[in-house]
Amino acid sequence: METMIYNDPRQRIGANYIEGEGVQIRLWAPLKDDVRIIWNDGVPEPLARDDEGYYTGFFPAAKPGDRYIFTEGENRFADPASRYQPEGSFSPSAVVPQAFAWSDKDWRGIPFSEWVIYEIHVGTFSETCDFKGVIADLPRLKDLGITTLEIMPVSQFSGCGNWGYDGVFPHAVQNSYGGPDGFKALIDAAHAQGMAVILDVVYNHIGPEGNTLFACAPYTQTKYKTPWGDALNYDGEHSHHVRRYFLQSVWQWLTEYHLDGLRLDAVQTIFDTSAIPFLEELSALKAEAKKMRKQSLILIAETDANDSRILAPISQNGFGLDAQWADDLHHALHAILTGERNGYYEDYGDLAQLARIYERGVAFEGQISPFRHRHHGRSYEGVDKKRLIVESQNHDQVGNRMKGERLSMLVEEQKLKLAAACILLSPFTPFIFMGEEFTCRKPFLYFTSHSDEKLNEAMRKSRAEEWKSFGWDEEPPDPSDTETFNQCILSDGDRAEGAEMQAYYKELIALSKTLRKSSCSVSYQEKQNCIVLKYPEVNKIVVLNFSDKEEEVELAYPIPPFSARVFDGAGL
Amino acid sequence: METMIYNDPRQRIGANYIEGEGVQIRLWAPLKDDVRIIWNDGVPEPLARDDEGYYTGFFPAAKPGDRYIFTEGENRFADPASRYQPEGSFSPSAVVPQAFAWSDKDWRGIPFSEWVIYEIHVGTFSETCDFKGVIADLPRLKDLGITTLEIMPVSQFSGCGNWGYDGVFPHAVQNSYGGPDGFKALIDAAHAQGMAVILDVVYNHIGPEGNTLFACAPYTQTKYKTPWGDALNYDGEHSHHVRRYFLQSVWQWLTEYHLDGLRLDAVQTIFDTSAIPFLEELSALKAEAKKMRKQSLILIAETDANDSRILAPISQNGFGLDAQWADDLHHALHAILTGERNGYYEDYGDLAQLARIYERGVAFEGQISPFRHRHHGRSYEGVDKKRLIVESQNHDQVGNRMKGERLSMLVEEQKLKLAAACILLSPFTPFIFMGEEFTCRKPFLYFTSHSDEKLNEAMRKSRAEEWKSFGWDEEPPDPSDTETFNQCILSDGDRAEGAEMQAYYKELIALSKTLRKSSCSVSYQEKQNCIVLKYPEVNKIVVLNFSDKEEEVELAYPIPPFSARVFDGAGL
Repeated sequence: METMIYNDPRQRIGANYIEGEGVQIRLWAPLKDDVRIIWNDGVPEPLARDDEGYYTGFFPAAKPGDRYIFTEGENRFADPASRYQPEGSFSPSAVVPQAFAWSDKDWRGIPFSEWVIYEIHVGTFSETCDFKGVIADLPRLKDLGITTLEIMPVSQFSGCGNWGYDGVFPHAVQNSYGGPDGFKALIDAAHAQGMAVILDVVYNHIGPEGNTLFACAPYTQTKYKTPWGDALNYDGEHSHHVRRYFLQSVWQWLTEYHLDGLRLDAVQTIFDTSAIPFLEELSALKAEAKKMRKQSLILIAETDANDSRILAPISQNGFGLDAQWADDLHHALHAILTGERNGYYEDYGDLAQLARIYERGVAFEGQISPFRHRHHGRSYEGVDKKRLIVESQNHDQVGNRMKGERLSMLVEEQKLKLAAACILLSPFTPFIFMGEEFTCRKPFLYFTSHSDEKLNEAMRKSRAEEWKSFGWDEEPPDPSDTETFNQCILSDGDRAEGAEMQAYYKELIALSKTLRKSSCSVSYQEKQNCIVLKYPEVNKIVVLNFSDKEEEVELAYPIPPFSARVFDGAGL
Repeated sequence: METMIYNDPRQRIGANYIEGEGVQIRLWAPLKDDVRIIWNDGVPEPLARDDEGYYTGFFPAAKPGDRYIFTEGENRFADPASRYQPEGSFSPSAVVPQAFAWSDKDWRGIPFSEWVIYEIHVGTFSETCDFKGVIADLPRLKDLGITTLEIMPVSQFSGCGNWGYDGVFPHAVQNSYGGPDGFKALIDAAHAQGMAVILDVVYNHIGPEGNTLFACAPYTQTKYKTPWGDALNYDGEHSHHVRRYFLQSVWQWLTEYHLDGLRLDAVQTIFDTSAIPFLEELSALKAEAKKMRKQSLILIAETDANDSRILAPISQNGFGLDAQWADDLHHALHAILTGERNGYYEDYGDLAQLARIYERGVAFEGQISPFRHRHHGRSYEGVDKKRLIVESQNHDQVGNRMKGERLSMLVEEQKLKLAAACILLSPFTPFIFMGEEFTCRKPFLYFTSHSDEKLNEAMRKSRAEEWKSFGWDEEPPDPSDTETFNQCILSDGDRAEGAEMQAYYKELIALSKTLRKSSCSVSYQEKQNCIVLKYPEVNKIVVLNFSDKEEEVELAYPIPPFSARVFDGAGL
């Protein structure tokens, strides 16, 4: 099993420190000639090159904290497998110590069936814009009932203000957030509070600025096109080296960072038609992981494909992942609550459809999607609903709007509470976007911090076009303007203002953990515009009233307009 | 279930004659404006256009045999769903009668486990270059023991001399071969002899000359690249119409032509990452087919992907196809017998590997392929070996060589006999390429008959480059030269010359049917260069001796060099 090489610092790519011996360097760069290494502004030193294009060298004097950069003639470039870029994307890489004073040796994770996920963008979560700001807020999140922090991508990107999907060093942790030690400190602190941490990882493309990979080796291929250009090379010639590069990063997050799971960004753009797809190979790592640390590594796919094969076990030709995002519920709920029907909301807005989503897990299981102009999805029969992650807001659904409006900026408070209940009292695994629990009314905008003005201009143009297709044709905010980023930063004041909503969320979260111990049956009360969820094993009935007036459903209790009520289900 | 529309002549695309009522026309052409139809050189008549871009009309006076062509302004184009192009690709289409005087009403097919497949290129199989020439030879094939004719593609292509993979009217039958009635006559005659007929169908691309599809509708997309350019659109916008187009052709072959199965050309180039891939949808037609005619429709994939998911049932997330080509056996055998190691033969040539293929079905189940520079394949554990189709020659393996040499032109007769035994005495489903059974020594060259000289020049260049990559840098034959085609035509004289080899094949074919009633265990006798196949339930032992000298293996009988012997296995 190849994972073993990820445990062997002499086999791993990047700079690997071996206590008391020195640093092993291994770089895959078959497209480069005569690569040398410069340590701490010294002179170029030679590396050996093997038949597969790996450049290697062992440096007994090198140690953690030392900086290095590669050269090819006059050209200098940072390590594609860099673990740390202390001065940003364009500067030398640094050797990172493997050692960290972990205090979580008794940590065994939280059963996935109890998860309540909370999504955090580190840069805007606090006024310090870093991991420390997250650590400071952990007691509040713990009190709220959050079990799992989902951290938006932290791999090194260019500048300080980026969602993280423009990362160019997948093995590194963003310097402005606090680097590797800062991230480890956050994970350790969360574990100490009894919370799990998962990381959003981007294995479908490499960001546009500061990318040193593509000049080194065939990381891409021309057979498939993604929204970002040529697809990463997971099934072409030399793809086993590309896979090794990303799988080593998975192994790193697991072993060096003690992460509880990974959220795999937009897996529908990981094109791979080979007989053992990358996602399956990744999923097979879970067995190795379990052996090593007696805790499951939870793998979650972000996908818009409604393809249940993602969740099917490898033995049944699935990808064997644990869970997936299931955005149909979001879209249906958003369309109903806001009345919006532009863009992909065209396919949603009907309450009967929302009821079917509670029943089936997704809206499209092979039907024609009018928005997509094609068949969409596959049957979800038999899929455990807890393996579907649902939300009423997330960074994409909020941030891909031109004005980055949270739901709180679109509908009244009554509907916000109904939306929260639709997620937290559902049979699915609930997901909360940072700030929604305190009715934050700051936008979450699309922002970047590239240094290349041409790139910024291209970005502005493509965003403006996307927004226009949604019918939004006002002057759009400039993603590269620091003010765009600054507007999104959450403050302690914001948190304090939303105390009442937080109390409501706390109550729902507690209920959520109870409800999910039961099976769930769904009924749609068309006349009353209500959806009724029955949880027989815990004797609870949830009524979601989407009517603009008070309704009575089955039970003799009236339900106020746009609200949810939970009844004791004795006598069900 | 959408298949029902293929049974309804008013819903089907193309020209559909309804007995005593007239002809329904339906054309999918959303990219065209104001399409009209001209009947029998008359004046343009209007068609109605619906929201999805279907142009329709009903013509009470029209009848089978009538010619029609579409117009858009000055531009004329044949029906992309034409059933017949009596004067070739560039001329009007013709209405085809549904009726045919079938005599096969008691035909129920042959169990797949007994199949011995014989591949025929209609154009070069006989001196008449048509279906009649095949019909004339059926008694000989029947006597040989052939159960199933595999007909290379017959969909209308440009000119008269083409392998068939340049077809541009997937619903039509090549005029020079005898058109729809000629093909039906062949199938009916084969069924009368007790032989099944399957057709090689090309659903991965449309040929380069005479293609009227792409100007009518989004049959392609830009997301994936195939060796022929943009991939067909099986998962993009409007792909359900593209699927309908090809699925209707499947349904036609099944219902109007009484075919027993289809061989799907190079399925690894059918790119489709949607949640219900086209191949799965195609495979689901089998259940409908079985209901309708009480006989299985056998679906066979040609694939080089070693991806056993093709054979896995739909319920286990496979594609649910019945069988696949498994070329590893060919490549291993060819490399061993010829000593060739160029091109993909680089990965083969080791006898232990050939033994493993007998054991596992394929050589690569996930290992790195040196030729492919990547992981290749997936486990075939548990796959019934009869679902793998093997051959020592086929149109590709012979015809993609620069000089089109059959194995008979590369090795001595002794080795030819061993090769035949390796296929026919294997646990797999055997496949014979027309002519190998009479030691034909005429080449099977790559030939085309396009009228566009620029296209011919491009073809010459690309072929020459391909051949150069195999180390063949002589002056290559010109695919577009009629003489290239003529050289490949098999004559009665050729058949008569190979009488002794035919007797040998006849014996092996009879044995093949016996052996496949048993399980098979494999042992590799390294010292003797022999592979031993034991068939315990029918008490037979097959010894394949690859040594250049006589060898004794297990049994006390000596096996001559390069030969196969079959022993009665009493006492196994």
